[in-house]
Amino acid sequence: MTIKDVAAACGVAVSTVSRVLNNHPDVSASTRARVLEAIDRLHYIPNNSARDLVASQVDSIGLVVRGAENPFYTPIIRAIEASCEAAGYTMVLHQIPVGADEISAGAALVRSKRLRGIIFLGGRFDYSQEEGAAIGIPFVCCTNTNQFGDLDKSVYSSVSIDDFAEGYRATRLLIDQGHARIAVLLDSVRDHSISELRYAGYCQALADAGVPLDADLVLETIDFTMAAAYERTLRAFRERRDITAIFAIADSMAISAMKAIHDVGLTVPEACSIVAIDGIEMSRYTVPTLTTLTQPQVTMGEEAVKILLDVLSGAAPSRHVRLETVLREGETLGPARH
Amino acid sequence: MTIKDVAAACGVAVSTVSRVLNNHPDVSASTRARVLEAIDRLHYIPNNSARDLVASQVDSIGLVVRGAENPFYTPIIRAIEASCEAAGYTMVLHQIPVGADEISAGAALVRSKRLRGIIFLGGRFDYSQEEGAAIGIPFVCCTNTNQFGDLDKSVYSSVSIDDFAEGYRATRLLIDQGHARIAVLLDSVRDHSISELRYAGYCQALADAGVPLDADLVLETIDFTMAAAYERTLRAFRERRDITAIFAIADSMAISAMKAIHDVGLTVPEACSIVAIDGIEMSRYTVPTLTTLTQPQVTMGEEAVKILLDVLSGAAPSRHVRLETVLREGETLGPARH
Repeated sequence: MTIKDVAAACGVAVSTVSRVLNNHPDVSASTRARVLEAIDRLHYIPNNSARDLVASQVDSIGLVVRGAENPFYTPIIRAIEASCEAAGYTMVLHQIPVGADEISAGAALVRSKRLRGIIFLGGRFDYSQEEGAAIGIPFVCCTNTNQFGDLDKSVYSSVSIDDFAEGYRATRLLIDQGHARIAVLLDSVRDHSISELRYAGYCQALADAGVPLDADLVLETIDFTMAAAYERTLRAFRERRDITAIFAIADSMAISAMKAIHDVGLTVPEACSIVAIDGIEMSRYTVPTLTTLTQPQVTMGEEAVKILLDVLSGAAPSRHVRLETVLREGETLGPARH
Repeated sequence: MTIKDVAAACGVAVSTVSRVLNNHPDVSASTRARVLEAIDRLHYIPNNSARDLVASQVDSIGLVVRGAENPFYTPIIRAIEASCEAAGYTMVLHQIPVGADEISAGAALVRSKRLRGIIFLGGRFDYSQEEGAAIGIPFVCCTNTNQFGDLDKSVYSSVSIDDFAEGYRATRLLIDQGHARIAVLLDSVRDHSISELRYAGYCQALADAGVPLDADLVLETIDFTMAAAYERTLRAFRERRDITAIFAIADSMAISAMKAIHDVGLTVPEACSIVAIDGIEMSRYTVPTLTTLTQPQVTMGEEAVKILLDVLSGAAPSRHVRLETVLREGETLGPARH
């Protein structure tokens, strides 16, 4: 069975069959339908062998990004795509809002795109066993672990920082400068995600230093937008001016907080120090430059793909990699005023 | 020919053949090879008909992003993906560095991924007829036109702002505040791209106002990084302090320039005003807030997909859409000091 047989069977030129097979737009709908019908009826396998067909289905890796508007993810996405490409895989990107559920999005992607593996970026930390099973193919959590879920560690992989330890470290930097009235700027203390873990690190650092936790200084934004972080910080400083430091769980939140502090007439770091976690490029160029714990973004992306490829090829089982941040010394950390 | 025949032919269970077909990892390499060989030999078409095979090839749209580290593109990419998804297409993302050539990247993507259409984001403005032909499938230029190339307007589509007119408008905003020593911060005046076009608008606005062009005030960064924009601005202010305004062709460059101006001990806008083009979220939160001509990012992405779908379905021919910016009044535009 060749392309000539198909052409003869439906009375069109070989080039027309070729155009249909190559999805060329200038074939009329009726001719296209006729060619497809003949292909169907004659069981013609276009171009190559069924082996190629199978091969063409095995080359995609899905990337589900939750909250893609966060510039922190941009270099990670780039690294993941480059690593997929280098290994001969197509990366299928699917971006969902912060509030959406990546498990159902991921499962739908697996069904519709015939993926071999999937990487979740910016995902939840509380996958259940049922949710893990719903994915059905190997997956890697990038930037998140599963500390609040009951998924067995052997059925998935992860690459992330130790959110508790880094939250502790950021808070400690402020305590070491003599700060005691340290606010924490986060999504929600019960988000079962990075906010909750970094907040736990903040609480532990305060406790270890003998600083009592002050509920007024826990600034929840509930969503992850820059606008919400700006408004929440503005409100905090309108209510009380004695805050001398802020630990922001993300650079983008810290940038909003700096703007709010400026807008209430105070200066950073003289009136209020700020330390964050992330290390995005933009926060190098804020006035003043943000002091932040930089995550190894490119390494995180590359490592996520490497792990997934190892699992897919059978070279290694699922694994969990913890990476460390590097302090980028900026201009937003200073001694406490008293 | 059924899956049972394949299983029988190579002496494995039906479930094993199914696993191979579904790319499940836990099949040994030798078994996988044996099953694929049998599929090949028996001309078995997995699961569905050849019609599905053809259908599975027609559902992808490629997106080639040049310079994806620019946060300006993030909302556009998101809008393009959402629009593709809503129309039942998979978006295949390919990110390339600013210096790379999107035509060869796009052509390779078309060959390897069997795309139906392609969108170029952040691409060149000088495609030749040969390059257009190399793509071979319908394509839309998003943010770029083809003002320096010889591609016939009927063979591709575009969505962009009028770079010349917006460069003129930005410069005019500064002239209207009494500025005469206005620097322009850009990639290169001969980049055959947005820099060259916006620079032409800058020159025309100066000429119309009777302000002579001063070559010292043309700040070329040669690359598009924030670091280069910072260094170039720093150097300009070290050489001469009489610059009273900057037109930066992109928000990210303007943010770097603000930092450089701060670092030489001057203030924005008292010592130097800045106006840019883009309107990224981050520049709302800089201190001071950037005054910028905001591009309709989401509309640009949606429109690019809409045009491509129209061309693919035959509903409309190629077309070229020009969108306008909206002035976001920030805090970086003030009257000239004399």
